[in-house]
This record gives sequence, C-alpha cells and structure tokens, in this order.
Amino acid sequence: ARCGFPEVVYGEGKPAPMIVEIIEAQQARGDASLVTRLDPAVAPILLNRFPSAVHNPVGRTFRLAGAGDTPSCEGFIAVITAGSTDLPVAEEACETLAWMGVRTVRINDVGVAGPHRLPERRDEFRHATALVVVAGMEGALPSVVGGYVGCPVIAVPTSVGYGANLGGIAALLSMLNSCASNVAVVNIDAGFKAGYMAGLIATRVSAPHPSAPSGPA
Amino acid sequence: ARCGFPEVVYGEGKPAPMIVEIIEAQQARGDASLVTRLDPAVAPILLNRFPSAVHNPVGRTFRLAGAGDTPSCEGFIAVITAGSTDLPVAEEACETLAWMGVRTVRINDVGVAGPHRLPERRDEFRHATALVVVAGMEGALPSVVGGYVGCPVIAVPTSVGYGANLGGIAALLSMLNSCASNVAVVNIDAGFKAGYMAGLIATRVSAPHPSAPSGPA
Amino acid sequence: ARCGFPEVVYGEGKPAPMIVEIIEAQQARGDASLVTRLDPAVAPILLNRFPSAVHNPVGRTFRLAGAGDTPSCEGFIAVITAGSTDLPVAEEACETLAWMGVRTVRINDVGVAGPHRLPERRDEFRHATALVVVAGMEGALPSVVGGYVGCPVIAVPTSVGYGANLGGIAALLSMLNSCASNVAVVNIDAGFKAGYMAGLIATRVSAPHPSAPSGPA
Amino acid sequence: ARCGFPEVVYGEGKPAPMIVEIIEAQQARGDASLVTRLDPAVAPILLNRFPSAVHNPVGRTFRLAGAGDTPSCEGFIAVITAGSTDLPVAEEACETLAWMGVRTVRINDVGVAGPHRLPERRDEFRHATALVVVAGMEGALPSVVGGYVGCPVIAVPTSVGYGANLGGIAALLSMLNSCASNVAVVNIDAGFKAGYMAGLIATRVSAPHPSAPSGPA
Amino acid sequence: ARCGFPEVVYGEGKPAPMIVEIIEAQQARGDASLVTRLDPAVAPILLNRFPSAVHNPVGRTFRLAGAGDTPSCEGFIAVITAGSTDLPVAEEACETLAWMGVRTVRINDVGVAGPHRLPERRDEFRHATALVVVAGMEGALPSVVGGYVGCPVIAVPTSVGYGANLGGIAALLSMLNSCASNVAVVNIDAGFKAGYMAGLIATRVSAPHPSAPSGPA
Amino acid sequence: ARCGFPEVVYGEGKPAPMIVEIIEAQQARGDASLVTRLDPAVAPILLNRFPSAVHNPVGRTFRLAGAGDTPSCEGFIAVITAGSTDLPVAEEACETLAWMGVRTVRINDVGVAGPHRLPERRDEFRHATALVVVAGMEGALPSVVGGYVGCPVIAVPTSVGYGANLGGIAALLSMLNSCASNVAVVNIDAGFKAGYMAGLIATRVSAPHPSAPSGPA
Amino acid sequence: ARCGFPEVVYGEGKPAPMIVEIIEAQQARGDASLVTRLDPAVAPILLNRFPSAVHNPVGRTFRLAGAGDTPSCEGFIAVITAGSTDLPVAEEACETLAWMGVRTVRINDVGVAGPHRLPERRDEFRHATALVVVAGMEGALPSVVGGYVGCPVIAVPTSVGYGANLGGIAALLSMLNSCASNVAVVNIDAGFKAGYMAGLIATRVSAPHPSAPSGPA
Amino acid sequence: ARCGFPEVVYGEGKPAPMIVEIIEAQQARGDASLVTRLDPAVAPILLNRFPSAVHNPVGRTFRLAGAGDTPSCEGFIAVITAGSTDLPVAEEACETLAWMGVRTVRINDVGVAGPHRLPERRDEFRHATALVVVAGMEGALPSVVGGYVGCPVIAVPTSVGYGANLGGIAALLSMLNSCASNVAVVNIDAGFKAGYMAGLIATRVSAPHPSAPSGPA
Ligand SMILES: Nc1ncnc2c1ncn2[C@@H]1O[C@H](COP(=O)(O)O)[C@@H](O)[C@H]1O
Ligand SMILES: Nc1ncnc2c1ncn2[C@@H]1O[C@H](COP(=O)(O)O)[C@@H](O)[C@H]1O
Ligand SMILES: Nc1ncnc2c1ncn2[C@@H]1O[C@H](COP(=O)(O)O)[C@@H](O)[C@H]1O
Ligand SMILES: Nc1ncnc2c1ncn2[C@@H]1O[C@H](COP(=O)(O)O)[C@@H](O)[C@H]1O
Ligand SMILES: [Mg+2]
Ligand SMILES: [Mg+2]
Ligand SMILES: [Mg+2]
Ligand SMILES: [Mg+2]
Ligand SMILES: [Mg+2]
Ligand SMILES: [Mg+2]
Ligand SMILES: [Mg+2]
Ligand SMILES: [Mg+2]
Repeated sequence: ARCGFPEVVYGEGKPAPMIVEIIEAQQARGDASLVTRLDPAVAPILLNRFPSAVHNPVGRTFRLAGAGDTPSCEGFIAVITAGSTDLPVAEEACETLAWMGVRTVRINDVGVAGPHRLPERRDEFRHATALVVVAGMEGALPSVVGGYVGCPVIAVPTSVGYGANLGGIAALLSMLNSCASNVAVVNIDAGFKAGYMAGLIATRVSAPHPSAPSGPA
Repeated sequence: ARCGFPEVVYGEGKPAPMIVEIIEAQQARGDASLVTRLDPAVAPILLNRFPSAVHNPVGRTFRLAGAGDTPSCEGFIAVITAGSTDLPVAEEACETLAWMGVRTVRINDVGVAGPHRLPERRDEFRHATALVVVAGMEGALPSVVGGYVGCPVIAVPTSVGYGANLGGIAALLSMLNSCASNVAVVNIDAGFKAGYMAGLIATRVSAPHPSAPSGPA
Repeated sequence: ARCGFPEVVYGEGKPAPMIVEIIEAQQARGDASLVTRLDPAVAPILLNRFPSAVHNPVGRTFRLAGAGDTPSCEGFIAVITAGSTDLPVAEEACETLAWMGVRTVRINDVGVAGPHRLPERRDEFRHATALVVVAGMEGALPSVVGGYVGCPVIAVPTSVGYGANLGGIAALLSMLNSCASNVAVVNIDAGFKAGYMAGLIATRVSAPHPSAPSGPA
Repeated sequence: ARCGFPEVVYGEGKPAPMIVEIIEAQQARGDASLVTRLDPAVAPILLNRFPSAVHNPVGRTFRLAGAGDTPSCEGFIAVITAGSTDLPVAEEACETLAWMGVRTVRINDVGVAGPHRLPERRDEFRHATALVVVAGMEGALPSVVGGYVGCPVIAVPTSVGYGANLGGIAALLSMLNSCASNVAVVNIDAGFKAGYMAGLIATRVSAPHPSAPSGPA
Repeated sequence: ARCGFPEVVYGEGKPAPMIVEIIEAQQARGDASLVTRLDPAVAPILLNRFPSAVHNPVGRTFRLAGAGDTPSCEGFIAVITAGSTDLPVAEEACETLAWMGVRTVRINDVGVAGPHRLPERRDEFRHATALVVVAGMEGALPSVVGGYVGCPVIAVPTSVGYGANLGGIAALLSMLNSCASNVAVVNIDAGFKAGYMAGLIATRVSAPHPSAPSGPA
Repeated sequence: ARCGFPEVVYGEGKPAPMIVEIIEAQQARGDASLVTRLDPAVAPILLNRFPSAVHNPVGRTFRLAGAGDTPSCEGFIAVITAGSTDLPVAEEACETLAWMGVRTVRINDVGVAGPHRLPERRDEFRHATALVVVAGMEGALPSVVGGYVGCPVIAVPTSVGYGANLGGIAALLSMLNSCASNVAVVNIDAGFKAGYMAGLIATRVSAPHPSAPSGPA
Repeated sequence: ARCGFPEVVYGEGKPAPMIVEIIEAQQARGDASLVTRLDPAVAPILLNRFPSAVHNPVGRTFRLAGAGDTPSCEGFIAVITAGSTDLPVAEEACETLAWMGVRTVRINDVGVAGPHRLPERRDEFRHATALVVVAGMEGALPSVVGGYVGCPVIAVPTSVGYGANLGGIAALLSMLNSCASNVAVVNIDAGFKAGYMAGLIATRVSAPHPSAPSGPA
Repeated sequence: ARCGFPEVVYGEGKPAPMIVEIIEAQQARGDASLVTRLDPAVAPILLNRFPSAVHNPVGRTFRLAGAGDTPSCEGFIAVITAGSTDLPVAEEACETLAWMGVRTVRINDVGVAGPHRLPERRDEFRHATALVVVAGMEGALPSVVGGYVGCPVIAVPTSVGYGANLGGIAALLSMLNSCASNVAVVNIDAGFKAGYMAGLIATRVSAPHPSAPSGPA
C-alpha cells in the first residue's frame, strides 16, 4: 500500500490471468483489492477464482476485502447524480469508497432541470464530510450543490449527452468555471478518482490530526 | 420596417455622421431607432443631435422613439442575470425590448452559487411571457431557471470569466446542452439578439392570432 | 405535467420494461406520452403494449395521446429542412409538436444551394407562429429563412456532412453567428428541443394572455 | 515575374526603405508592383517616392503599374460582400485584380439576412468569369451566391463578428461545408489570395488555349 | 442541368430505388448522371439497371453519359496525389471531371518526403489548365506544386494519417495557410468538389468568352 | 458567512467605493474580509480606509481580519510552485488560506525539469493536511508530487508559457489526466479556489467530527 | 536506401501481395526491410514467404535483415515507457532501432505517479546516446526523464487514456510545453518516427565525423 | 552546469538586477551565460555591466562566454528559415548554438512557394550534423528539407501568419504529421529549444563515444 492505500488495478485491456496474479499478490500481503474498468467477459473468471468478491457490473468494478483490519472511518460521503445515465460513474465512485472503508449515501436523478428535487433531499447530504457530484450534459449540478453545503465538492463530468456536448467537454468546462468556490474537478467519467479524493478527505478527518514540521507561517 | 420592426444599427466601427444619417432616415419614415455596440465617443454627438433619445452607457445603446404609434403589448419579459458583471449584456437586451415597446422586469445577481436567491424572487418572473437569462462562467443559470417556468427561455452566454472559460465558450456549451427543454441559445454577449427574440414572442402573444394557409396536418 | 406539459422520455439506452412502466404511469394520470431516441428493437414491444400509439421510425419517436382534453391551439409551426438527410431531426420536431397538440407544415429540401426553392414555397410558411429550421453542412438556411419572416426562428444544426463539418459544429457555429436577428439555436440534432420551444411559443399565443406581477417598467 | 505575375510584397512589418528597394527593382525590370497589408505610417513615404502609384487606405494596398504592356483581359470578376464591415478584405481583392489587369464589378452589403438584395442585383454578376464572395459572421453568402451562377466562386471568410465567431473560424467552416459545388475557399481575411485566384481564372480564359502534353486520357 | 451541369447525386445513405429513379429522370432529359459516395452494396443493382455505366469502386462513384452531345473541352486537368492512400479522393475527382467531359492526367505518389519525384514529372502537369492536388498527413504538396505552376491549384486535404492529424484538420489548415498564392481549398476528402471546381475552370477556358454587363470599372 | 466562511469579493472591475462598502458591511458583522483580483490602482484607497489590512500586490489580494474569533486550525497546507512565474497564483492561494485561519508552508521553484529539487524538500510537505500545487507550461508537477504523498492534492494550472500552451490549456489537460489518483483540479490561474478547497479540508480535519444522518450503507 | 536507410513500408491497408512485392524488391537490392502498422491477418502470409523474418505482434511490425553488412553502431538507445499500455508504441520504436542496427535498452512502467521507480533504474539509461520516452495520459514522463540526462530525448505521446485526454492531445501538448530543454516531440503513437530519430542520432555518433562545406561562422 | 551545459535564463518578466545577479554567479563559476526572451529595455543595463557580451536584438538574446575552455566541436548545424519573418526564432536558435560552442550555417527565405530556392543551396546544408528548420504559415519546409538529407531535422513552427494559422497551430500540426521520418518538433516559436536539441546532437557526435551499461540487447 503506497501511502496508506494499495494500488488499484486499471482493468482496461488487461487479460484475466494478469489480473488474477495481481490480486493474489495483494491478498498475500493482506491488502484489499480493487479493479476498475473491468471487461465484462473477465468478470466470471475472477468471480470463480475469488468467490467472496463483489462484482459491480454497472460500475464495471471488482472488489475484494483484505485480510488486514478494515479501517473504520467516521463521517460519510454523499454521491449525487444528475440523471440515471450518470449511474455507472457514480457506481465506480461508490465502489472505490467501499474499498477504502468509507460509508456512502446515494442521491440519484436530482439534476437542475427539476429544481425542487435537490433541496427536498438536502437533509441526506448536508452533514457529509465531502460530496461527489456526477453530471453530464451541461454539468450544472455541482455548482448548485456547492451552494447548499460548506464542505468540499468533487465534481465528475460524464460523457453523457450528444452534439455540442463533445464527449463530456461541455460538462467539464462548466464545472471548471463553477461560481461555487468549493468545487474541484476530475477527468470526464473518472468515478474512481472522485471517489478516491473524497475518501482521502473522509479518512483524514477520522485520523489522528497530522502536525506540521519545522516552521510554517 | 422589415417584417414589423425597423433595422437596428450595429454601431461597432461606424462613424457618428453615418449613424446620424441612418437615424434621420428612420425618423423621417416615422420609425423608432436603435443603435447597439455604440462607441462611447460617438454618444455625445448623437445626443446633441437627438436630445430626446435615451443613451445607455452600460448597455452601449442609443434609442429614439419613432413618430408612429408605439405598439402596445400585454405581458412582459423578465431579464435575469447570474452576476453583476453580466449587466452590460442584460442592459442591451432591455433596451432592445424597450425599443420594441415590450415591458421588462429585471432580476440581478441570482447565480446558482447562492441557490436561495432565485426561488425567493420567483413571483417576479413566473408570469413572464418569456425569459432572457444572462450568465457567464459556467452558464448554469438558464437550466435552473428553465426548471421553474413553463415559458420559453432565451439564454445568453457572456464572456465573463477566465481560464477554461475560453471567452464564453464554456457558458455557451453549457447552455446548448441544457437538460431543460425550454431553453434556446444565442451568441456569446448577444444581448440584442436575446432581447429581440423575446420581444418577438411577446408581441406575437399580444397580436391578433395568425392563421395558417391551406392545409397543415 | 411540469408547468403544463408532462415529462418526455429520453429513450436512449432505456430497456423496454422501464419505458412501459413510465408510460403506464403517465396514462394513469391522463397525460399524453412521448418517447424520443427510441431503440428500434424496443418499438415493437411498446406497440404491442400500446396499440393505439404512433411510432415514427424515421424520427425514432413513440407517441400516445392522453385521456385528458387535447389542448386546441390556433396557429401552426412550419418545419423546414435543407436536405433530405436532415429528415430524422425534422420528424422528431414534428412528433413533439403533434404531442403538444400544435399543427405543423412541412417544407423539405429547400437548402440554399438551390436559392429558388425557398421563395417558391414562401406562402406555406409566412403565416406560421414560429419556424423550426433544420440544416446540416454549412447551416446557412436559418439565416436566409430569417430574412423572409418576422416571427421567431428556432434553428437546429444537424450532424449531416463530413470533414470540416466536425459532427455538426460547423452548422452550429454558423447558426449562432446568424446575421438575422430572429434566430435562436438549440443543440446539434436536437429536433425535440426545437419542436418543444416552437410549441411553447404557439401554445402561449393561443392561451389567454398572461399578466405581469407588481411593477415592471 | 514567376509564371506570369511578379511577386507581391507582404507589407506587414517591413520598413519603408526595404519596400522602396523591392519596388525599384521590380520597376527596373518593367514589372508592375503590389504591396499588401501596408502599415499606414509607411504609405506617405512610398507615395512621396512613387507619386503615380495608387494607395488604397481601406484595403491597405499600394499599387504601381509597370513599364511593360498591361495585359488586356476579356471578362470580369464580381467582388461581392455581405456587409459593409467586410469592405477592407474586398478592397484588397479588387486592388489585386486591378494590378493583374482584370476588370471588377463591386456589389456590397447583400448579406443573406436581407434575402431580396442579392437577386435584385443578379444581372450585375451573372456574366462574370468568376466571383469573389466576402463574408463574416455565419459566412452563408457564398453558398447562396453559388446557387445563382455556374461559374467558380472563391469564398473569403472574414474575421468580422464576435463570440462564437472565433475570429472568422465560424465563417471559414461554413464556407468549407458549402452545399454549393462551385465554391472553393481561401484563408480568413485573405482578400489578396481570393483576388489572385479569380484573376488567374480570368486571365486564362482570355489567353490562347493551353494544350496538353503527350497523353492524358 | 442547373447552370450548365445537372445535379450530382450524393449517394450516402440513399437506397437503390431512389437513386435509380433520379438517374432515370436525368436520362429522360438527356442529361449525364453522376453518383458519389455510393454504398458498395448498391452498385450491382445500379449496374444491372444501367449496364453501360461506369462504376469506380475505389472512388465510390457511378457515372452514365447522357444522350445529349458530350461537350468537348480543350485543355486538361492534372490530378496529383501525395501518397497511394489518397487515391480514393483522387478517383472521385477524376470521375467528376470525366462526367464533365474534361480530360485528366494522373500523377500519383509524389509527396514532398521524396522531393525529386515531383520535378521529374513536371512536364506532365505544367501545361494543365488547372490542378487538383490531393494530400493527407501534413498536406504540404499543394504549396510545393503551387510554386511550379502559374495556373490555379485546387487543394483537397484527406483524412489520411493518425494522431495529431485530427481526421484531416492538420492538412486542411496547412493548405489554407499555403504561402503559394494560387491555392484555394475544398473540404476534407471532397474529391467531387475539387474536380467540379477544376472542371468549371477548364470548360470556361474552352467556352466562347463571356462578356461583362453594363458598367464594370 | 454562508456555510462558515463569508463571501469573497471578486475585485476585477469593481470600483473602490463599491468594495469599501462591502468590506464595511462585513466588518460590521464581525466577519473577516478578502478581496481577490484587486486593481492595483484601488489598493491605496482601500489601505487608506482600512490601515490594518494586508495588501499583497503580487497575489493582487486585500485581506482584513474580522472582530470575531479567528478560528484556530491544526495541520497546515503546503503550497508548491513549479517556477517563479507561478508565484502570483500561489500568493492568491496563500492569502486565501491566511484569511481562513489556516497555516501554510511555501515551497517554490521545484519544477520537474530539476528532478532533485522536489525530493530534497519532501520533509517540508509530507505531513501537510493537503497540498496546493501550482504549475504552468506542461503542468507535470502535481502528478509527481501526488506520488510522494497520501493526502489530497489540489492542482492549479497557470497560464504561464507560450505557443502550444494555449493560455494554460496544456497544463490543465495534463493535470486532469494525471496518473496520480489523489489529484483534483481547479480552473486556470484559480489560486483562490485552490486555497479555498485546501482550507476546507484543513478546517474539517480540525473540526469536531460530523456525523451522518439516518441511514447510509 | 534514401540517404542511408531504405524506405519503410507503412502497412496500414496494404494487401499482402503488395507488401510481398516491395520486400522482394528490397531484398533483391540487399536492403533490410521493415513493415509497420501491419494488419494481423497479413502477418502469417508474410511469415510463410519470409520465414527468417521477425514478426512483432505487439508492435505490429515485420522485420527482415538484408543481405548486406549490418551496420555496427556503438552506443545504445534507452526506450522508456510510463505504463504497460504504452507497450505497443515502444515495441514499434525498438523494432525500428533493431532494423537500423542500433542496440536498445528497455525500461517499462516507470511513470511519474510512482516517483521512486525512475531514479532506481537510472544507471540503465544514463549512458544512452539518446532516449525514446513513451507516455500517454498526462505525458509528464519525458520532462522528468529530461531532467536526469544530458542527452537528447525523443518524446512520443500515446493515445492511452480517456475523457479530457482527447486521443493523446493532452500528452502531446504536455510534451511540447516541457520545461526540459532536451525534449523534442513526434506525432501521437508514432513509435516508428521516434525510433528512427533516435537511431539517426546513434548512427551519426558512431559514424566518421562529417565536415562542414565552405564557410559556416 | 547540469549535465554539461549551465542553465539558461528565461528573461521574460525578469528585472535587470535579478538577471545581473544570475550572470555574475555563473561567471564566478567559470560558466558561459545565455539569456533568452530579453526585454529590450533591460539589454542596455546588462551591456553596461558586461561589456564583452553579445546582445542580439532580433533574437532577443544576451550571451557571454565563460572563463572556462570553450568546448570545441566538429561538424555544424544548418539553421534554415522559410521566410524573413521567421528570422527572430532562427536568431534565437543560432545564439543558443553559439553559446554551446557549435558552428552554424544560415540559409534564409527558402520556403516551399519558391521550390527552386532550396535545392540551389543544398551544398550548404547536406553535410550538417543536424538541421534546425524554422517555418510559419503552413509549416511545410521541414518535410521538404527532410527529404533532402539523412540527418535529424528539428522543426520549429512559428506564429507567423494570420486567420486559420491559429497562432502557429497550423504549422505545428503540419510538422507533427510530416511524412518525412527524420523530423521531430518543438513548441511554437521555441528557437532556443530547437538550437539546444541540435547542439546536443552535434556535441555528442564530437564527444568520445558513450558506452552502454550492463546488458542491452
Ligand atoms: N448587437 C448586435 N448583435 C448582433 N447583430 C446586431 C446587433 N446590432 C444590430 N445587429 C444586426 O445588424 C444588422 C445591421 O447591421 P449594419 O447594416 O452593419 O448596421 C441589423 O439588421 C441587426 O440584425
Ligand atoms: N461527394 C460530395 N461532396 C459534397 N457534395 C456533394 C457530393 N456529391 C454530391 N454533392 C452535392 O450534393 C447535392 C445533391 O445532394 P442530394 O440532394 O442529397 O442528392 C448536389 O447538388 C451536389 O452539389
Ligand atoms: N479569484 C477568484 N476566482 C474565482 N472566484 C472568485 C475569486 N474571488 C472571489 N470569487 C468568488 O466570487 C464570488 C463573489 O463574486 P462577486 O459577487 O462578483 O464579488 C465569491 O463568492 C467567490 O466564490
Ligand atoms: N508507423 C509509421 N508512422 C509514420 N510514418 C511511417 C510509418 N511507417 C512508415 N512510415 C513512412 O511511410 C513511408 C512509406 O509509406 P508508403 O509508401 O505508403 O509505404 C516511409 O518512408 C516512412 O517514412
Ligand atoms: Mg431524470
Ligand atoms: Mg455576486
Ligand atoms: Mg437535395
Ligand atoms: Mg448591413
Ligand atoms: Mg509512398
Ligand atoms: Mg526555475
Ligand atoms: Mg503501472
Ligand atoms: Mg520570402
């Protein structure tokens, strides 16, 4: 585990035996394992070999607890989507958080075109340690969510949309230009990265406080 | 007046005598006059010649009633801005609507980062015939506004912002990809065009109903 | 029905049972139903379940009247295409208007390369409440049409073309920069949105006049 | 003179003495001279040295006949603009044609938003050997003009416009995607190049017919 | 035939019976027929119906002489390619010229990386009325060719290449920025358009000279 | 103070009296004040009015403590720059953190071209609660830094560079595609936003632990 | 062999018999042969005809020694990759160098997210004549490597990544803006070109020194 | 001196005293000094302090020999420009090479539009160790030069041009897609980098041969 969390396997294009071998090595070290962007055809082979693992076909992930202690973490992350087509990216984020031992709350389909939906569910996310907000098309949701909370928001643009959406670039630019100050952005469709960033914030909040070296101002 | 409204003078780069000449010709025909993108140095010369005109230095417009009957128009257009830096574009839209004889309501600085601001003022715009919504940065406001009303929304991206804003392209793409069905878009900073479109809708609503030719299905 | 019209089902990637369920709920409320971007394989299943519905395979739509009163609407919308390859987008717009209870007139293949074709058919569209103009390649048609009428024009760029067309971006930019003042734009291939915007204008024209709140200028 | 016409001086950034020297050398060979993109501050110096030259301040050109025979050329080129802001580019094209000894007809401000203007002047350009069509904003004019004539059209996008115009890219893409088959395109604001291409066509039409080498199919 | 040449059928997506019908109508008028971008599966059907036609599978064209007189045209067009992968676009241009009754000379695989190849074949193209130059990758060939001749060069960028080629945009930009004055450009892969432009130049050179109307300067 | 921190004044284009008025209102409420993107000409006027404030001319900020308790915050943020030209953006981040009551450590000029510089200073940043990493040109520094730490990294691309840098887009894309999992990104030159995000993480770490509502999984 | 090395066959789209013919001609001249971008289906046919050749299925190359003397070359090229998905491009580079008779050292999977990996292997590449560095995603590796060596670095961006990676454009821009002075760049995925450039440097270092002509300063 | 050459001072925005200090430190170590992108106003101050230095106002460089031995280097670099407007970039490259102790030959204004100019001067560059080729507009020159030589070519796109040149992007893309195998590319206007890369090749050719470590294949 580099700096606390073991390396995650990017499954795209990796053959089943190569992934099996990596997981076996991680398990031998007592580490938990996470595979993302898993080829659907590879999943049954992995499940056969590691029957206690969790395969999430929507999020295209494969997750296996390690022998070591699961870190326990106070607080939770709310993972919020604009529409149901953003689900695979949200699932990838949630699986990443589960692998990090961080609790999650899911709030789906509260995109800005139905402006009453988000505030109705505010109680579910207002106490979160941080938020992951997933949106395609115009990517406006993180800006709106950012206005309702004081915690950090990790925004994930998705490639959901067509035409001038440009494969997610429209949502990405929108999020980078957010007028809400508490919004940072990860790559298009990068559910893993958003989950990981939010998880790092959550685990640090639960950890004993770090202390500075020599002499910061 | 081509199809009901006289031609508007695009003031950019036009010398004062040329504009004076155009306005004089329009006034001679009894038409109202509107100049947009007026060079600030040209304004005093025009005002000297046409003392009853309205010069809007923020919107960079110059407007003069015609001798003919002002069309009277029921209904009104709400012109809404996200931030105070979007004001010049909103002023251009309002002056255009004033020139068309259409009443306007102004709602400023209700951008999405402060999500309580817009619903608080909903009563002021919910009965509008159409809306003009002006926003820079991430351009999310028209999508949110579109969810609160059933009328047509004309969205105007502005070049307000920096970095990945790309001179207004981020807001433009955001608005084109709006998940609200009742949003159409005009060019970046095109306050005139947005006002004109909204004004056409308002005047048609007030006009005696048109009737179709021969045989539409 | 949010603000007058029920929500439209975006069919892309939705399985048949999910769509059936949504339609049944809408019908139970007495609402009309519209599905766009329908997967061709899903259509027969829907038709089997709702035999009185209209399936438009070119426009990829599925439409079903509600039990409630069809709103009757004076006026009509002309839907104009530049070339025959723009047809699917025009069909989507027309189906949307039919679902809204708005009459349409179709004028096909009057692109600018044959400049005599459009004026020859002017009588068919000059009295329309608003126009939907659909064009790919250089997207010049809305500018030209805009010069022939005084009503609002909703321009839809299509992804028809090749090379420097960039999947419809060339037509989109062309329409946004239109020198005609009465042109607003929707996303590439967004026939539904264009139809919806035009339909809103038409139904408002027919509706009892809205009146302003307190005190617009 | 390389292949019939002497080299043209691109004036941008060239100091007066350097330009004087080049012109003197050309005149010594009996050639005609043309300077484009001339710095306004350099013009008086050149005029002082070559008093019989023609300085066009709008087109930013400087032109001087050669001692040799002016080629006489039948036919003519029509140079057409969409709006009055496109004038400098059209002037550059006309001066280039004058330097090549080719007659020109000018047709200004016939952009597509006023669709009656172009056909009214059709008699002035229908017999031209080729056309130069200059347009900014949406760049639709060459497509429309191309439908009225059977001769080659050289389209020049200009950087006139704002916002999504992208410094002329919108007009350029529009012209490249023209649905008219007889339209070829030069760089943004490249009045010289458009004039030169049209002039080559005109002079070849007037020249004794070329004949092929050995064996084309 | 609009302005001298009948309309060309853009075959993309058109079913066989629709194309057969168009060709029959053209033949009934005595016109020649040309189909471009023909679906390979449609070709045998057309050939069965019109056995005397020429099907070019590389250029994806289908061509049929008309009953009327073939125009005879002096001069010829040289069609030059940079590499062998540019061939389909060159074939489309040649078929278009054949349909217009214009002779062609083909010069293949003379790209700039082998700088001796082009000058060795200069005698074959130096007397051409105009050139069509087809190149992908860096698109440098038209600039070099333009330096060897005094006639108009129609440059066609192709989508041949990978990576930063951007589907032909690299070659397109290169050609638009050509330092050779006698180069105009058509869309990426637009062999038809390049051939048509060159053919118009060739047929005008052979035609009786046009004469100007009233009063050009 | 919305959600814990008062609103920050975006100084760009705001006249001195308007800023004075906002600060006075904040101070009256006991809030701290921060102005960013301050016009250099406005600074002396503000300093005259609020002599105890801190004006940072490099970061273009103006900061004034509130009457209320300064929140005390354990931990610290390391603000790291690639080169000395990135300094203004780093200063804006540091001033924002100072205004939030968060300690900072500065590490300058450790860009990747001198790969020994960063590890030499690792002790100064390895215990930070979060990092702000500021880099222009190729924007590689956040990826490298991300590999040295387990905490969240907020990456800020700057517009430092030329040519294919595209005003900071090259660095922005680089950071979004970082192979390090712990990197999230803000807009180009957005020092304020990066500081604010890092400050939120630091203050949450110091705060009493939040607890989840009803029922997260 | 043009200037020392025979021409390489770009295999994309070339049928087996055409490639066989080219190789036979090269072998007849005693030249070595190299085919890149080979269609996997063509490989067995070539291997059957030339059984002593080397087929590299990962790099998609086919290589055959010539009858002539293999040039012997002192020094070596280190080919370094950021991740295992960059392997095909690295293989293409290595095969090109093998064909040129240049020794190579391979260093895989030393991307910047694991910053300890590269310096650990520094002894393997510090004495190389030049480096080929292959990286996708953010393309930061060449900048870091460039800081460790004094020799020329040829950087190859790969199309590995997703979202804002834009098919390799992110890595390409990153490399072009490298703050390391000793980095030059080739096209996305252009392993052949990078290997060829590095090989030219290596063979010149081994060659008898060239000497200048007449009079350089 | 890192890896053989001392660090170069990027002068952009650095005040005179800061530059003086850096140079003094380098001179104290016996190193040679080079400043690039020097502010013209700073030059006289530097010259006053270091009277034996060479200030190149066109290339915007300032160069001072070190006390140590000038490395002597066999071979030479040819620096070739397409047009006279490319001169500043070429001067920067030449000054960099002079500072490295590498001889240069200059060949100016041999752009492809005059295709006879380059081969006429071939004897001056055919024996160079490597070439630096500088070109704006369509950037075709490196491809052509690459065909005439067997040595490495470092291509530098310049921002010379207008319109679709996009500030040098057209030339950059052209060079990256070069069909010549021996061309690598540096950033737009990066004369220093091109000179440095070429100088590294030249000095390695002159140096005692490096030898590989342990065991390359
Ligand atoms: N601010 C504006 N933005 C876009 N178009 C405008 C603007 N103001 C006027 N126009 C249009 O420009 C045309 C007049 O242009 P001109 O002939 O140059 O004065 C009018 O018909 C309007 O359609
Ligand atoms: N390959 C082609 N590229 C561009 N335009 C074409 C092509 N082939 C035919 N056309 C144009 O398309 C028009 C016919 O389009 P359509 O009515 O769809 O058959 C003709 O008038 C031609 O101008
Ligand atoms: N430098 C900055 N960059 C981006 N956003 C900022 C900056 N400074 C302040 N803001 C935001 O701008 C809002 C205030 O904008 P305004 O009402 O125009 O003063 C604040 O709530 C901040 O979120
Ligand atoms: N993978 C490659 N990428 C770029 N250029 C290549 C590649 N392989 C071969 N070439 C070039 O393509 C030329 C041969 O192209 P061709 O005549 O089509 O086989 C060679 O001279 C090489 O310069
Ligand atoms: Mg939904
Ligand atoms: Mg505000
Ligand atoms: Mg048609
Ligand atoms: Mg006009
Ligand atoms: Mg070849
Ligand atoms: Mg530094
Ligand atoms: Mg790895
Ligand atoms: Mg020159």
